[in-house]
Amino acid sequence: MTFPFDIALVWLDLAGVFFFAVSGSLLAARKQFDIIGSVLLASVVSLGGGVIRDIILNSGPPAAFTNPAYLAPPVLAAFLVYFLFSSVQRYTSLLILFDAGGLALFCITGTLKALSAGMNPIAAILLGVTTAVGGGLLRDITANEVPQLFDPKDLYALPAFTGASLTTVLWISGTFNAVTACAVAGVVFAFRVVAWRRSWHVPLAVRGWHRLGLDGSGGGRD
Amino acid sequence: MTFPFDIALVWLDLAGVFFFAVSGSLLAARKQFDIIGSVLLASVVSLGGGVIRDIILNSGPPAAFTNPAYLAPPVLAAFLVYFLFSSVQRYTSLLILFDAGGLALFCITGTLKALSAGMNPIAAILLGVTTAVGGGLLRDITANEVPQLFDPKDLYALPAFTGASLTTVLWISGTFNAVTACAVAGVVFAFRVVAWRRSWHVPLAVRGWHRLGLDGSGGGRD
Amino acid sequence: MTFPFDIALVWLDLAGVFFFAVSGSLLAARKQFDIIGSVLLASVVSLGGGVIRDIILNSGPPAAFTNPAYLAPPVLAAFLVYFLFSSVQRYTSLLILFDAGGLALFCITGTLKALSAGMNPIAAILLGVTTAVGGGLLRDITANEVPQLFDPKDLYALPAFTGASLTTVLWISGTFNAVTACAVAGVVFAFRVVAWRRSWHVPLAVRGWHRLGLDGSGGGRD
Repeated sequence: MTFPFDIALVWLDLAGVFFFAVSGSLLAARKQFDIIGSVLLASVVSLGGGVIRDIILNSGPPAAFTNPAYLAPPVLAAFLVYFLFSSVQRYTSLLILFDAGGLALFCITGTLKALSAGMNPIAAILLGVTTAVGGGLLRDITANEVPQLFDPKDLYALPAFTGASLTTVLWISGTFNAVTACAVAGVVFAFRVVAWRRSWHVPLAVRGWHRLGLDGSGGGRD
Repeated sequence: MTFPFDIALVWLDLAGVFFFAVSGSLLAARKQFDIIGSVLLASVVSLGGGVIRDIILNSGPPAAFTNPAYLAPPVLAAFLVYFLFSSVQRYTSLLILFDAGGLALFCITGTLKALSAGMNPIAAILLGVTTAVGGGLLRDITANEVPQLFDPKDLYALPAFTGASLTTVLWISGTFNAVTACAVAGVVFAFRVVAWRRSWHVPLAVRGWHRLGLDGSGGGRD
Repeated sequence: MTFPFDIALVWLDLAGVFFFAVSGSLLAARKQFDIIGSVLLASVVSLGGGVIRDIILNSGPPAAFTNPAYLAPPVLAAFLVYFLFSSVQRYTSLLILFDAGGLALFCITGTLKALSAGMNPIAAILLGVTTAVGGGLLRDITANEVPQLFDPKDLYALPAFTGASLTTVLWISGTFNAVTACAVAGVVFAFRVVAWRRSWHVPLAVRGWHRLGLDGSGGGRD
């Protein structure tokens, strides 16, 4: 790699933080939280995945707590949503687009951080996926919703897994650079958004569930 | 400072643990959990914020797991609620008072621990706020409620932020001592309780949301 | 001890991981998540408790991220549930049985790991209980249900506490070995399942709650 790797990684990470922060503020808007709740939910979703990643890597306090730059995106996102989206009603579409942007960047930076720390490829892919889906999972848990991650009508983990795997293969084969990184991010973003628009889905957790005559209630005990 | 700082910090922390533990047991009573659930929810809310703080500081196992004294407040709180509050129906008011006491003490101890560990002022304020709101957030997530933290009719993070900022300013200016610490705790407690009694609030996450004709349902997708 | 202790501990841990993973996939099936959601929920419940344990012990990255063997049980569990349980409707009974198996093994391995790391007996019991109930708590929080841990009709923490205490007593008295470990696991499993079948329960969080004329609504603010 010819570009200063650490600095590029921080910028890529900050861009992912910003995308996820906007998705958090949009959800806060939809749930009618106030502006402080908007900053907080933006912080949870945008910094949560990275904090989990850094705690698991166990290499000192998480970047979000040592580098004040990480606090700018959530504050910025809350103000942008406050001033720009007041007349916008299509929250869900926007939320998915920004969420997909964050997912695309975080599965790359999470995997790279793990590989740099000397983790084995399988662990690096796992940590990349955890970083990418962790923030969104925390956002939905915090806002008391069933996580998007488990919505059968929405592929979420599969694009993250694809991105983390591609990043690991490129890294091991020595072909990871700015161009291939952008390509991977593009693939993950497109995969996530197209899967959502076209309602791609995978089989349910059990075969032939519909034959049991169970309707959409889902939560009933037997 | 003339008083033995570390010991005073532990006692301040334990007092905060006790206040939060009572708030946890009161919520357990309101949700009709059993006495074991009361001890557990008291433990989650009272020790959760400190465990998150110590994990983020990354300086060995959390105090709650190494110092058995931290286990006394949750057990004591569960028994007090069991024996004293059986005829009390105004759970919410009491819950808010005890919650405010925990918040006031935890935003001070969290910030102090971070400053002692050599964190920069911004990171120390952030960790102080995280410690103070973390336990209550875990309590509400665990009990499957929308967190109080996001209730637009309830200022929660702002008093914690005020307390953490005041603590940091006092520490840096060298005027942090037992008297100023009590003053900060009093300010935070009063801010939280008065804001709740008088229904102070800040703007919602988007401007002019009410003009969209959206009622209080909040959770509906567009 | 005459058996290679570390290896036996990993196998015991992996068996517990498998039991909890099946319980996660069964809940995913009941909530009609898809097959990826099934793998993810199985991973959260089966690896979550151990990850929390290893983060609190603060001795390097969690085992689940460094030893790829830990990824096999969740994947295996999701496939087993997909292919074998399609015609089974009694999800709850099965979920409780597998959950009890995981609980029995995790309260032992969690306590042992803490004792091996030099923690004091009280801290070791606390970490054993945290490990055992942590995965199930994460499972229910993630799936947006009130945690089983707080169900007054279900003893959950008490069997784990019993198992962690017995393990600690055996370890300190030098009589912990393969035979006594199996005995402890059997006691915890039987305690959990019999308590559930016979609806054993402990008092509620407040005395005489029923005298207040409160019905089962539970969540209402006063």
